[in-house]
Amino acid sequence: MDQRLETIKKSIRDIEDFPKPGIVFKDITTLLNDAQAYKALMEHLYDRYKGYELDFIAGIDARGFIFGAALANMLGVGFVPVRKKGKLPSTTISQKYSLEYGYDEVEIHLDAFRRKKNAQVLLIDDLIATGGTAKAAVDLINKTEALCVECCFIINLEALGGTDKLEAPVYSVLKV
Amino acid sequence: MDQRLETIKKSIRDIEDFPKPGIVFKDITTLLNDAQAYKALMEHLYDRYKGYELDFIAGIDARGFIFGAALANMLGVGFVPVRKKGKLPSTTISQKYSLEYGYDEVEIHLDAFRRKKNAQVLLIDDLIATGGTAKAAVDLINKTEALCVECCFIINLEALGGTDKLEAPVYSVLKV
Repeated sequence: MDQRLETIKKSIRDIEDFPKPGIVFKDITTLLNDAQAYKALMEHLYDRYKGYELDFIAGIDARGFIFGAALANMLGVGFVPVRKKGKLPSTTISQKYSLEYGYDEVEIHLDAFRRKKNAQVLLIDDLIATGGTAKAAVDLINKTEALCVECCFIINLEALGGTDKLEAPVYSVLKV
Repeated sequence: MDQRLETIKKSIRDIEDFPKPGIVFKDITTLLNDAQAYKALMEHLYDRYKGYELDFIAGIDARGFIFGAALANMLGVGFVPVRKKGKLPSTTISQKYSLEYGYDEVEIHLDAFRRKKNAQVLLIDDLIATGGTAKAAVDLINKTEALCVECCFIINLEALGGTDKLEAPVYSVLKV
Protein backbone atom coordinates (compact mmCIF):
# COMPACT_ATOMS: atom_id res chain seq x y z
CA MET A 1 0.00 0.00 0.00
CA ASP A 2 1.41 3.39 -0.93
CA GLN A 3 2.14 6.09 1.64
CA ARG A 4 -0.92 8.12 0.74
CA LEU A 5 -3.29 5.20 1.26
CA GLU A 6 -1.56 4.40 4.55
CA THR A 7 -2.16 7.98 5.74
CA ILE A 8 -5.82 7.80 4.70
CA LYS A 9 -6.40 4.42 6.34
CA LYS A 10 -4.79 5.41 9.64
CA SER A 11 -6.93 8.53 9.90
CA ILE A 12 -10.23 6.61 9.93
CA ARG A 13 -11.51 5.82 13.43
CA ASP A 14 -13.41 2.69 14.43
CA ILE A 15 -16.33 3.32 16.79
CA GLU A 16 -17.78 0.20 18.38
CA ASP A 17 -21.50 -0.33 18.87
CA PHE A 18 -22.68 2.56 16.67
CA PRO A 19 -25.40 3.04 15.55
CA LYS A 20 -26.33 -0.14 17.45
CA PRO A 21 -24.65 -2.92 19.46
CA GLY A 22 -22.38 -5.19 17.43
CA ILE A 23 -21.72 -2.69 14.62
CA VAL A 24 -18.25 -1.17 14.20
CA PHE A 25 -18.79 2.23 12.60
CA LYS A 26 -16.11 3.67 10.30
CA ASP A 27 -15.79 7.29 11.40
CA ILE A 28 -14.46 9.46 8.57
CA THR A 29 -14.66 12.73 10.57
CA THR A 30 -11.12 12.03 11.82
CA LEU A 31 -9.98 11.79 8.20
CA LEU A 32 -11.68 15.07 7.30
CA ASN A 33 -10.35 17.10 10.22
CA ASP A 34 -6.79 15.89 9.52
CA ALA A 35 -5.69 18.33 6.79
CA GLN A 36 -2.91 16.00 5.60
CA ALA A 37 -5.13 12.92 5.36
CA TYR A 38 -7.97 14.82 3.69
CA LYS A 39 -5.53 16.24 1.15
CA ALA A 40 -4.03 12.79 0.52
CA LEU A 41 -7.48 11.37 -0.16
CA MET A 42 -8.55 14.15 -2.51
CA GLU A 43 -5.28 13.92 -4.46
CA HIS A 44 -5.71 10.16 -4.71
CA LEU A 45 -9.23 10.65 -6.12
CA TYR A 46 -8.08 13.40 -8.46
CA ASP A 47 -5.31 11.19 -9.83
CA ARG A 48 -7.78 8.41 -10.52
CA TYR A 49 -10.40 10.55 -12.23
CA LYS A 50 -8.44 13.31 -13.99
CA GLY A 51 -8.30 11.20 -17.18
CA TYR A 52 -12.03 10.39 -17.23
CA GLU A 53 -14.37 12.39 -19.46
CA LEU A 54 -16.85 13.14 -16.67
CA ASP A 55 -19.70 15.62 -16.99
CA PHE A 56 -21.01 15.44 -13.41
CA ILE A 57 -20.27 13.98 -10.02
CA ALA A 58 -23.25 12.85 -7.96
CA GLY A 59 -22.88 12.49 -4.18
CA ILE A 60 -25.18 10.64 -1.81
CA ASP A 61 -26.79 12.55 1.11
CA ALA A 62 -24.97 13.55 3.29
CA ARG A 63 -21.36 12.29 3.59
CA GLY A 64 -21.14 11.72 -0.16
CA PHE A 65 -21.61 15.48 -0.58
CA ILE A 66 -18.28 16.11 1.14
CA PHE A 67 -16.06 14.03 -1.15
CA GLY A 68 -18.20 14.49 -4.26
CA ALA A 69 -18.36 18.28 -4.14
CA ALA A 70 -14.64 18.65 -3.42
CA LEU A 71 -13.73 16.33 -6.30
CA ALA A 72 -16.15 18.03 -8.71
CA ASN A 73 -14.48 21.33 -7.87
CA MET A 74 -11.00 19.86 -8.52
CA LEU A 75 -12.10 18.38 -11.86
CA GLY A 76 -14.10 21.44 -12.96
CA VAL A 77 -17.38 19.56 -13.41
CA GLY A 78 -20.86 20.05 -11.97
CA PHE A 79 -22.06 18.46 -8.73
CA VAL A 80 -25.44 16.79 -8.22
CA PRO A 81 -26.81 15.89 -4.77
CA VAL A 82 -28.72 12.60 -4.47
CA ARG A 83 -31.03 13.46 -1.58
CA LYS A 84 -33.26 11.83 0.96
CA LYS A 85 -36.95 12.19 0.17
CA GLY A 86 -38.53 15.64 0.50
CA LYS A 87 -35.38 17.77 0.41
CA LEU A 88 -35.29 18.78 -3.26
CA PRO A 89 -37.55 21.66 -4.27
CA SER A 90 -38.21 21.07 -7.99
CA THR A 91 -39.61 18.09 -9.92
CA THR A 92 -37.91 14.89 -8.83
CA ILE A 93 -37.69 11.20 -9.65
CA SER A 94 -37.30 8.85 -6.73
CA GLN A 95 -36.26 5.31 -5.97
CA LYS A 96 -37.20 3.21 -2.96
CA TYR A 97 -34.88 0.67 -1.39
CA SER A 98 -35.29 -1.86 1.40
CA LEU A 99 -33.90 -1.45 4.87
CA GLU A 100 -33.72 -4.12 7.54
CA TYR A 101 -37.25 -3.07 8.54
CA GLY A 102 -39.25 -1.07 6.03
CA TYR A 103 -37.79 1.05 3.26
CA ASP A 104 -36.20 4.38 2.48
CA GLU A 105 -36.16 6.54 -0.63
CA VAL A 106 -33.68 8.75 -2.51
CA GLU A 107 -34.40 11.44 -5.08
CA ILE A 108 -32.76 13.56 -7.75
CA HIS A 109 -34.15 16.44 -9.74
CA LEU A 110 -35.52 15.34 -13.10
CA ASP A 111 -33.22 17.95 -14.70
CA ALA A 112 -30.28 17.21 -12.37
CA PHE A 113 -27.94 16.48 -15.31
CA ARG A 114 -29.26 19.44 -17.33
CA ARG A 115 -30.99 17.00 -19.71
CA LYS A 116 -27.63 16.32 -21.36
CA LYS A 117 -27.93 13.06 -23.32
CA ASN A 118 -25.53 10.35 -22.13
CA ALA A 119 -23.93 12.66 -19.58
CA GLN A 120 -21.10 10.75 -17.90
CA VAL A 121 -21.73 10.61 -14.16
CA LEU A 122 -19.47 9.43 -11.35
CA LEU A 123 -21.37 8.48 -8.18
CA ILE A 124 -19.59 8.95 -4.83
CA ASP A 125 -20.34 7.92 -1.28
CA ASP A 126 -18.17 7.51 1.78
CA LEU A 127 -18.94 3.86 2.39
CA ILE A 128 -20.70 0.87 0.84
CA ALA A 129 -22.14 -1.79 3.14
CA THR A 130 -25.09 -3.83 1.81
CA GLY A 131 -25.38 -1.42 -1.13
CA GLY A 132 -29.09 -0.59 -1.00
CA THR A 133 -28.70 3.17 -1.16
CA ALA A 134 -25.98 3.04 -3.82
CA LYS A 135 -28.05 0.72 -6.02
CA ALA A 136 -31.03 3.07 -5.74
CA ALA A 137 -28.80 6.03 -6.66
CA VAL A 138 -27.30 4.25 -9.71
CA ASP A 139 -30.77 3.25 -10.88
CA LEU A 140 -31.98 6.84 -10.47
CA ILE A 141 -29.10 8.29 -12.50
CA ASN A 142 -29.71 5.75 -15.27
CA LYS A 143 -33.44 6.61 -15.32
CA THR A 144 -32.52 10.09 -16.54
CA GLU A 145 -30.76 10.70 -19.87
CA ALA A 146 -27.44 10.34 -18.04
CA LEU A 147 -25.24 7.31 -17.44
CA CYS A 148 -23.51 6.24 -14.23
CA VAL A 149 -20.04 5.34 -15.52
CA GLU A 150 -18.53 4.42 -12.15
CA CYS A 151 -19.29 4.27 -8.43
CA CYS A 152 -16.57 5.37 -6.04
CA PHE A 153 -16.51 4.61 -2.32
CA ILE A 154 -13.89 5.64 0.19
CA ILE A 155 -14.53 2.43 2.17
CA ASN A 156 -15.96 -0.86 0.92
CA LEU A 157 -17.11 -3.32 3.62
CA GLU A 158 -16.29 -6.14 1.24
CA ALA A 159 -17.77 -9.03 3.22
CA LEU A 160 -21.26 -7.55 2.82
CA GLY A 161 -21.06 -7.83 -0.98
CA GLY A 162 -22.80 -4.51 -1.64
CA THR A 163 -20.91 -3.80 -4.85
CA ASP A 164 -22.36 -6.95 -6.50
CA LYS A 165 -25.74 -5.20 -6.64
CA LEU A 166 -24.54 -2.24 -8.70
CA GLU A 167 -24.99 -2.03 -12.47
CA ALA A 168 -21.86 0.09 -12.88
CA PRO A 169 -18.11 -0.39 -12.43
CA VAL A 170 -16.93 0.16 -8.86
CA TYR A 171 -13.78 1.69 -7.41
CA SER A 172 -13.07 1.56 -3.68
CA VAL A 173 -10.20 3.47 -2.12
CA LEU A 174 -10.02 1.09 0.86
CA LYS A 175 -11.44 -2.42 1.26
CA VAL A 176 -11.99 -3.63 4.80
CA MET B 1 -21.51 43.53 -9.34
CA ASP B 2 -18.57 41.73 -10.91
CA GLN B 3 -18.99 39.16 -13.69
CA ARG B 4 -18.34 36.21 -11.38
CA LEU B 5 -21.07 37.26 -8.93
CA GLU B 6 -23.44 37.82 -11.84
CA THR B 7 -22.80 34.25 -13.06
CA ILE B 8 -23.38 32.87 -9.55
CA LYS B 9 -26.57 34.85 -9.01
CA LYS B 10 -28.11 33.89 -12.37
CA SER B 11 -27.50 30.20 -11.71
CA ILE B 12 -29.68 30.10 -8.56
CA ARG B 13 -33.28 29.08 -9.22
CA ASP B 14 -36.33 30.40 -7.36
CA ILE B 15 -38.91 27.73 -6.52
CA GLU B 16 -42.23 29.09 -5.33
CA ASP B 17 -44.21 27.53 -2.48
CA PHE B 18 -41.44 25.21 -1.21
CA PRO B 19 -41.29 23.80 1.41
CA LYS B 20 -44.71 25.38 2.04
CA PRO B 21 -47.09 27.90 0.45
CA GLY B 22 -45.81 31.48 0.41
CA ILE B 23 -42.11 30.57 0.67
CA VAL B 24 -39.79 31.20 -2.30
CA PHE B 25 -37.01 28.62 -1.99
CA LYS B 26 -33.52 29.45 -3.27
CA ASP B 27 -32.47 26.33 -5.17
CA ILE B 28 -28.67 26.06 -5.32
CA THR B 29 -28.68 22.72 -7.19
CA THR B 30 -28.76 24.69 -10.46
CA LEU B 31 -25.62 26.52 -9.34
CA LEU B 32 -23.88 23.26 -8.47
CA ASN B 33 -24.68 21.42 -11.69
CA ASP B 34 -23.46 24.38 -13.75
CA ALA B 35 -19.71 23.76 -13.86
CA GLN B 36 -18.95 27.38 -14.74
CA ALA B 37 -21.09 28.87 -11.95
CA TYR B 38 -19.84 26.37 -9.36
CA LYS B 39 -16.24 27.18 -10.33
CA ALA B 40 -16.95 30.94 -10.17
CA LEU B 41 -18.34 30.56 -6.65
CA MET B 42 -15.48 28.44 -5.35
CA GLU B 43 -12.89 30.84 -6.83
CA HIS B 44 -14.72 33.75 -5.24
CA LEU B 45 -14.63 32.00 -1.84
CA TYR B 46 -10.99 31.02 -2.30
CA ASP B 47 -10.03 34.61 -3.10
CA ARG B 48 -11.76 35.84 0.04
CA TYR B 49 -10.27 33.28 2.41
CA LYS B 50 -6.80 32.52 1.02
CA GLY B 51 -5.29 35.25 3.24
CA TYR B 52 -7.00 34.04 6.44
CA GLU B 53 -5.06 31.89 8.90
CA LEU B 54 -7.76 29.23 9.14
CA ASP B 55 -7.29 25.87 10.84
CA PHE B 56 -10.67 24.32 9.99
CA ILE B 57 -13.80 24.90 8.01
CA ALA B 58 -17.05 23.71 9.57
CA GLY B 59 -20.08 23.09 7.34
CA ILE B 60 -23.71 22.76 8.41
CA ASP B 61 -25.62 19.56 7.55
CA ALA B 62 -26.19 19.02 4.63
CA ARG B 63 -25.78 21.76 1.98
CA GLY B 64 -23.03 23.43 4.01
CA PHE B 65 -20.99 20.24 3.51
CA ILE B 66 -20.84 20.91 -0.23
CA PHE B 67 -19.28 24.37 -0.14
CA GLY B 68 -17.36 23.83 3.10
CA ALA B 69 -15.61 20.63 2.06
CA ALA B 70 -14.68 21.98 -1.38
CA LEU B 71 -13.23 25.17 0.13
CA ALA B 72 -11.34 23.27 2.87
CA ASN B 73 -9.76 21.18 0.13
CA MET B 74 -8.75 24.30 -1.84
CA LEU B 75 -7.25 25.93 1.27
CA GLY B 76 -5.55 22.77 2.54
CA VAL B 77 -7.32 22.77 5.93
CA GLY B 78 -9.45 20.20 7.75
CA PHE B 79 -13.22 19.96 7.40
CA VAL B 80 -15.66 19.48 10.29
CA PRO B 81 -19.32 18.54 9.76
CA VAL B 82 -21.89 20.16 12.07
CA ARG B 83 -24.56 17.46 12.08
CA LYS B 84 -28.18 16.94 12.94
CA LYS B 85 -28.67 15.03 16.17
CA GLY B 86 -27.78 11.34 16.24
CA LYS B 87 -25.52 11.20 13.18
CA LEU B 88 -22.09 11.48 14.80
CA PRO B 89 -20.63 8.29 16.27
CA SER B 90 -18.25 9.52 18.99
CA THR B 91 -18.72 11.80 22.01
CA THR B 92 -20.57 14.97 21.01
CA ILE B 93 -21.69 18.30 22.36
CA SER B 94 -25.04 19.59 21.15
CA GLN B 95 -27.04 22.77 20.96
CA LYS B 96 -30.79 23.13 20.68
CA TYR B 97 -32.49 25.91 18.74
CA SER B 98 -36.09 26.95 18.30
CA LEU B 99 -38.14 26.31 15.20
CA GLU B 100 -41.54 27.80 14.39
CA TYR B 101 -43.03 24.89 16.32
CA GLY B 102 -40.78 23.00 18.70
CA TYR B 103 -37.00 22.79 18.42
CA ASP B 104 -34.15 21.09 16.62
CA GLU B 105 -30.60 20.25 17.65
CA VAL B 106 -27.14 20.24 16.05
CA GLU B 107 -24.01 18.43 17.21
CA ILE B 108 -20.27 18.29 16.74
CA HIS B 109 -17.74 15.84 18.08
CA LEU B 110 -16.13 17.02 21.30
CA ASP B 111 -12.75 16.51 19.59
CA ALA B 112 -13.90 17.92 16.24
CA PHE B 113 -11.12 20.52 16.19
CA ARG B 114 -8.51 18.05 17.45
CA ARG B 115 -8.47 19.87 20.81
CA LYS B 116 -6.31 22.58 19.25
CA LYS B 117 -6.52 25.66 21.49
CA ASN B 118 -7.96 28.74 19.76
CA ALA B 119 -8.24 26.91 16.45
CA GLN B 120 -9.50 29.40 13.86
CA VAL B 121 -12.75 28.10 12.37
CA LEU B 122 -14.76 29.38 9.42
CA LEU B 123 -18.41 28.28 9.48
CA ILE B 124 -20.18 27.81 6.13
CA ASP B 125 -23.76 27.24 5.09
CA ASP B 126 -25.60 27.77 1.84
CA LEU B 127 -28.20 30.19 3.20
CA ILE B 128 -29.09 32.20 6.29
CA ALA B 129 -32.75 32.97 6.97
CA THR B 130 -33.77 33.54 10.60
CA GLY B 131 -30.35 32.29 11.72
CA GLY B 132 -31.36 29.73 14.34
CA THR B 133 -29.21 26.90 13.01
CA ALA B 134 -26.21 29.15 12.35
CA LYS B 135 -26.37 30.65 15.85
CA ALA B 136 -26.48 27.15 17.36
CA ALA B 137 -23.48 26.12 15.23
CA VAL B 138 -21.42 29.20 16.21
CA ASP B 139 -22.24 28.62 19.89
CA LEU B 140 -21.20 24.96 19.56
CA ILE B 141 -17.86 25.83 17.97
CA ASN B 142 -17.15 28.38 20.71
CA LYS B 143 -18.02 25.82 23.42
CA THR B 144 -14.96 23.79 22.33
CA GLU B 145 -11.43 25.18 22.57
CA ALA B 146 -11.86 26.59 19.06
CA LEU B 147 -13.07 30.00 17.88
CA CYS B 148 -15.52 30.80 15.11
CA VAL B 149 -13.72 33.64 13.31
CA GLU B 150 -16.30 34.16 10.57
CA CYS B 151 -19.58 32.82 9.19
CA CYS B 152 -19.94 32.59 5.44
CA PHE B 153 -23.24 32.17 3.60
CA ILE B 154 -23.77 31.90 -0.12
CA ILE B 155 -27.17 33.62 0.25
CA ASN B 156 -28.34 35.97 3.01
CA LEU B 157 -32.09 36.61 3.18
CA GLU B 158 -31.34 40.00 4.64
CA ALA B 159 -34.89 41.05 5.58
CA LEU B 160 -35.06 38.20 8.13
CA GLY B 161 -32.14 39.64 10.11
CA GLY B 162 -30.57 36.26 10.86
CA THR B 163 -27.01 37.57 10.90
CA ASP B 164 -27.82 39.87 13.87
CA LYS B 165 -28.01 36.78 16.09
CA LEU B 166 -24.49 35.59 15.39
CA GLU B 167 -21.58 36.29 17.72
CA ALA B 168 -19.07 36.24 14.87
CA PRO B 169 -18.33 38.38 11.80
CA VAL B 170 -20.44 37.47 8.76
CA TYR B 171 -19.71 37.39 5.06
CA SER B 172 -22.47 36.77 2.52
CA VAL B 173 -21.72 36.18 -1.15
CA LEU B 174 -25.21 37.35 -2.20
CA LYS B 175 -27.77 39.39 -0.29
CA VAL B 176 -31.37 39.07 -1.43
